[in-house]
Amino acid sequence: MAVQEPSLSELMNFAKTLADESGALIRGYFRSGYDVEQKADASPVTVADRGAEQLMRQRIQAVYPGHGILGEEYGAHQPDAEYRWVLDPIDGTKNFISHSYLFGTLIALLKNGRPILGVIHQPIVGDFLIGNGKGAWLNDRPVQVAPCSRVEDAVLLTSDHWNTFDYQNGSAFEALSKRVLRYRTWGDCHGYLLVATGGAHLMTDPIMNEWDYMALIPIVEGAGGRITNWQGEDPLTGSGIVASCGSIHDEVIRLLNP
Amino acid sequence: MAVQEPSLSELMNFAKTLADESGALIRGYFRSGYDVEQKADASPVTVADRGAEQLMRQRIQAVYPGHGILGEEYGAHQPDAEYRWVLDPIDGTKNFISHSYLFGTLIALLKNGRPILGVIHQPIVGDFLIGNGKGAWLNDRPVQVAPCSRVEDAVLLTSDHWNTFDYQNGSAFEALSKRVLRYRTWGDCHGYLLVATGGAHLMTDPIMNEWDYMALIPIVEGAGGRITNWQGEDPLTGSGIVASCGSIHDEVIRLLNP
Repeated sequence: MAVQEPSLSELMNFAKTLADESGALIRGYFRSGYDVEQKADASPVTVADRGAEQLMRQRIQAVYPGHGILGEEYGAHQPDAEYRWVLDPIDGTKNFISHSYLFGTLIALLKNGRPILGVIHQPIVGDFLIGNGKGAWLNDRPVQVAPCSRVEDAVLLTSDHWNTFDYQNGSAFEALSKRVLRYRTWGDCHGYLLVATGGAHLMTDPIMNEWDYMALIPIVEGAGGRITNWQGEDPLTGSGIVASCGSIHDEVIRLLNP
Repeated sequence: MAVQEPSLSELMNFAKTLADESGALIRGYFRSGYDVEQKADASPVTVADRGAEQLMRQRIQAVYPGHGILGEEYGAHQPDAEYRWVLDPIDGTKNFISHSYLFGTLIALLKNGRPILGVIHQPIVGDFLIGNGKGAWLNDRPVQVAPCSRVEDAVLLTSDHWNTFDYQNGSAFEALSKRVLRYRTWGDCHGYLLVATGGAHLMTDPIMNEWDYMALIPIVEGAGGRITNWQGEDPLTGSGIVASCGSIHDEVIRLLNP
């Protein structure tokens, strides 16, 4: 007898449970006296990152033992499975350790290598954003990107102003950041949440790992926006991410790659 | 018979009431379909800014009819009073209209022109930070700045990266932003909240109005930090604000004014 395929709505409900439970754990550590360790890539990690990922991995293995898992802190499990969860327990750990509110948890579910659902959960505020490529919902209400017909009217976000200079054309990015209406580093997953919910028009990161970008794709596309790598190609290349409201996307890609 | 002087604790409790009531009003407008108008200085304003200031002004006039008021949206009332409230109903309106969480309400009380208490209230999260120059409390728990002995270890924040170039020495600021451990534009009042509560070490704004900076002074000083103008002088000059954890303040002022 074949195992029944889980329905998309069942999987979306399960993703909500993962976010609720990991979010409660993370909130318990917020502004508390945890140690901050440096990882091999010099990025910080805390007991909150590790505990939240362990919790989500345990829940997935209990409910969907045939599914694969890739997490930022604990690597790959069953990498050849048809369904694979990709987890970033705290996207924006630098933000978390500075006691800001902008960090969040990223949860993606891939089927045969392509993301079919994505979650951004911001546990301090409780915003839960989920997308499946066809739609996107913030706290159960449908959301979409905001119209913006000119680069000069756009709100542009990124995570780290100087990071672009290390991985992409920093001068081109600087020129864009001066041309838009407004430019801020309200970064990490919060920037993508703002694009998908119509608060901003452009969010960029010059280099990304799978756990950084997989969840964003079904959200931004589900909200009617566009998401590519820095050169305007398939976002799954890892060569940065540009997410936008759509209409100005091609022009922005040209401006970033002169 | 002389009117009894209000006690500091009575005034601090009253400031909490102002924040609670204005915060409830602002939360009701967050992500809703209000119009955004441009003011004469090209900064945006909404019904939430105006409604929150009107509400606070009415409460102050009802409870302390002899006190003066200065608000960003409705100007001065009894400017020669011994006690004067200085209000910014939404500090970070650009943030509010982008649906981010970082904006807040600033409330200061001045006695004979000097601020004796200040409030930063971030209504989406509910963080209430109050200081009186001697102490500072976040949600009723005492807070203080975080130690930082070298500029290279500091987390630096500002509200708008390019704004510095219009009002201060932008090249010097850029050099500082490359020298610190981390640089972000988690701006407006949230940046000062992070310095006063130990999450960041430096927050800067190149130009400020009374309603932008008065509340910050008793908070940052109450948390054990330092706050001056951009040149290291009395912050009441309006020529920008530099708030820090203290130990690196003089060096930062030298770096910003080469």
